Amino acid sequence: MNDKQKLIAPRLPRGFEDRAAGEIAAVDEMIAKIRAVYERYGFDPVETPMFEFTEALGKFLPDTDRPNAGVFSLQDDDEQWLSLRYDLTAPLARYFAENYETLPKPYRSYRAGYVFRNEKPGPGRFRQFMQVDADTVGAPGPEADAEMCMMLADVMDALGLAGKYVVKVNNRKVLDGVLQSADVTGYEQKLAVLRAIDKLDKFGIEGVRLLLGEGRKDESGDFTKGAGLSGAQQQVVLDFISGKTPDENEGVEELRAMQALFLSAGYGNDRIEIDPSIVRGLEYYTGPVFEVVLTFPVTNEKGQQVVFGSVGSGGRYDGLVSRFRREPVPATGCSIGVSRLATALKLTGNLGQQEPMGPVVVLVMDRDQTAGYQAMVSELRNAGIRAEMFLGQTKNFGKQLAYADKRNSPAVIIEGGDERARGVVQIKDLIAGKEAAKSITDNVEWKTERPGQFECARSEIVEKIKALPAVAAWLARQT
Amino acid sequence: MNDKQKLIAPRLPRGFEDRAAGEIAAVDEMIAKIRAVYERYGFDPVETPMFEFTEALGKFLPDTDRPNAGVFSLQDDDEQWLSLRYDLTAPLARYFAENYETLPKPYRSYRAGYVFRNEKPGPGRFRQFMQVDADTVGAPGPEADAEMCMMLADVMDALGLAGKYVVKVNNRKVLDGVLQSADVTGYEQKLAVLRAIDKLDKFGIEGVRLLLGEGRKDESGDFTKGAGLSGAQQQVVLDFISGKTPDENEGVEELRAMQALFLSAGYGNDRIEIDPSIVRGLEYYTGPVFEVVLTFPVTNEKGQQVVFGSVGSGGRYDGLVSRFRREPVPATGCSIGVSRLATALKLTGNLGQQEPMGPVVVLVMDRDQTAGYQAMVSELRNAGIRAEMFLGQTKNFGKQLAYADKRNSPAVIIEGGDERARGVVQIKDLIAGKEAAKSITDNVEWKTERPGQFECARSEIVEKIKALPAVAAWLARQT
Repeated sequence: MNDKQKLIAPRLPRGFEDRAAGEIAAVDEMIAKIRAVYERYGFDPVETPMFEFTEALGKFLPDTDRPNAGVFSLQDDDEQWLSLRYDLTAPLARYFAENYETLPKPYRSYRAGYVFRNEKPGPGRFRQFMQVDADTVGAPGPEADAEMCMMLADVMDALGLAGKYVVKVNNRKVLDGVLQSADVTGYEQKLAVLRAIDKLDKFGIEGVRLLLGEGRKDESGDFTKGAGLSGAQQQVVLDFISGKTPDENEGVEELRAMQALFLSAGYGNDRIEIDPSIVRGLEYYTGPVFEVVLTFPVTNEKGQQVVFGSVGSGGRYDGLVSRFRREPVPATGCSIGVSRLATALKLTGNLGQQEPMGPVVVLVMDRDQTAGYQAMVSELRNAGIRAEMFLGQTKNFGKQLAYADKRNSPAVIIEGGDERARGVVQIKDLIAGKEAAKSITDNVEWKTERPGQFECARSEIVEKIKALPAVAAWLARQT
Repeated sequence: MNDKQKLIAPRLPRGFEDRAAGEIAAVDEMIAKIRAVYERYGFDPVETPMFEFTEALGKFLPDTDRPNAGVFSLQDDDEQWLSLRYDLTAPLARYFAENYETLPKPYRSYRAGYVFRNEKPGPGRFRQFMQVDADTVGAPGPEADAEMCMMLADVMDALGLAGKYVVKVNNRKVLDGVLQSADVTGYEQKLAVLRAIDKLDKFGIEGVRLLLGEGRKDESGDFTKGAGLSGAQQQVVLDFISGKTPDENEGVEELRAMQALFLSAGYGNDRIEIDPSIVRGLEYYTGPVFEVVLTFPVTNEKGQQVVFGSVGSGGRYDGLVSRFRREPVPATGCSIGVSRLATALKLTGNLGQQEPMGPVVVLVMDRDQTAGYQAMVSELRNAGIRAEMFLGQTKNFGKQLAYADKRNSPAVIIEGGDERARGVVQIKDLIAGKEAAKSITDNVEWKTERPGQFECARSEIVEKIKALPAVAAWLARQT
């Protein structure tokens, strides 16, 4: 290129990230375990594209001043607005409505994929992130909701988190009943009350009382305006979230039915519990709501001990398909946030954290012998072993070894003129070498012993490499 | 919803498509096989996000009149242009440059992911499609290019296409030498000559001659303007593509070196061959170029018999990283188009086409017994078997059975009041039932024999279901 041409800084837009080999392998393994549970529950995969017509997504509509508020949107060449999906539920609604005639009903499906939010990114908040959802469309009863809760519990067990989670369940109809009892009728006030209830975990009962009344000032002095309820109204809500209200309505009945299903299927209160403080998506859900909370303590950014919190959630949203079809279509679903769950698994040591085994590297000792080195590589590959010839420019032996180390190679193969004349190669077991290096401190001893290095006949390469402990263990892990 | 509200048509923007369970499973299996070969060759996975800064993608830049020409682009809130990646190579260049200090060099990586083209879609042409790429960055020699060709051959073998493909190899330096010999110097004329050569497969030697000269009229009367070469100039090019030119230059030397590597590694001309007519990405490649061509015949949209053609390609593009860094960074890579390859595998019967086994369905005979049915389902799931309770609204037995059939269920479980009182259930083996139905024509015989249906103790459900041939076969396929 022209020296005067301006170089471009290699960087990503904020809120987006690259993923390297170790993370990809660990997250793939995690998603495979989630998928296996979803499939055992009778859900089949389906995939929709990243783009939808903006009007099909419904929730956020671009306005003319700033078309990308909340979602990434752009105009197609026929002037129609397209958007990148911001969740996996809105596209499912479109898919179900589009294929209504041919799909089995109830329609049970799951999907894993990226979603996009055009929002201000922050620590742990990305503009592209992955979700794994399951939904049952066309099932009106609480059995379908109960199944979602049990499935979330089974996913946590499958990931090795037994005893470290609880699925908390509530019902929006119960909350609506309480709001009615407390004589809360205005839309904005309802939202404020639900938001206050949602803060029980964070601020305790006294914090919620303040948020139900005039408001609450936090340690930093920031004031959050309250819902403005009277003392009597506040008490109705507080009694409810303390479990003191023997409320009777459709929501309570559904919760009882779900509880019976949990118990008959062997899910005790230690795994799934009714919790009146669970609110979830204020305008979205129409019946049972639930979230799976990890209960082990972590230290937050302020240095406080808190429980890790929610890694997945869901509920019933019977309005799902109503943008597309007149008949009512009941639906319930759950969603797991992949990167947050991966973070949790990393903390508990349940994320596959082994670096993948690197390739056996055949070093290039003589530039004019690459056909011979390539033949060794091909023999190893044909035996199912990761292998490559060093392809860099350097002839330096130490640099080629350093490359193999960086690749996490189990071994290098060395064939110089002397070895070639004798029909042998040197194999250097890098793992054994590293182990030995810990105990050998004497440089002379090192050079004499050459730990981990041995000679074998050219014809024995595959056999000897297969017998190295690291390679044998890796081969045993492949199917 | 309000009856007067306008319904939205459930549909996708053109050029995008949904994928159902069978296709997802088949393509996942195909990609897993490709990945296994790439990994055996020493490549590690890496993933970049869908978005990049538009300037980092380089090739297409949005213009002010129509920002989305070729790529999907939009402006971020700080006025910077972002684009969805249109291939997996430009993001790799950014990634390599950004992580230059820490990456092992040569840097060998692969990635599978969606790319986006904001172009007019057509049959088999999508605006979102998947590629699986591998690249070696920082390797200058033909060994790195040869490896790509061998890897493409191994991928085809792994997919069951042995004997049905050939990897065709050429070198842009050879073509450049020919252009020089033929005294073709202008940029536009060079492109026209390369385009003409690229059409050898399609139009034969006489078609290429016309395209090198004044131009060619096709059957429909459409005229394609030619490169305008003199007769002598044409002959130089035609001699070359007919293999009559004993040309000597760096490109030929590189091809010879690659050929030696192919042969020493056991890849004969039946799998990888030098073909002077291969051109590939006119402005992109700087050295060896190659494509993997499927050689079996298919009928095209005009009813003509043609070879299936290219399913993957690649080459050396040493300019890759030069937008970001001043030093020269040699690179070579290959790319497989997933949907085109899947189409080919479907044609040859090598795509996993088995419909996934559906869940065992526990029918709901009594609405007030769902806790008991749920317990059966949970027992089956705990034994690793796909199972679900029927969650639809209908009580109709036939409709519940029809649902199970549509889900490809191996069996349904039936427990009415009578069975419950006796501590038994009916198991209906749907596969055996379908088989039997083929031979039973008499309705009375059918009702007496109830083919595939048998009774078992409530406590034996898991055991009996596991013993069904379809379930046993499915369980054996799981690991």
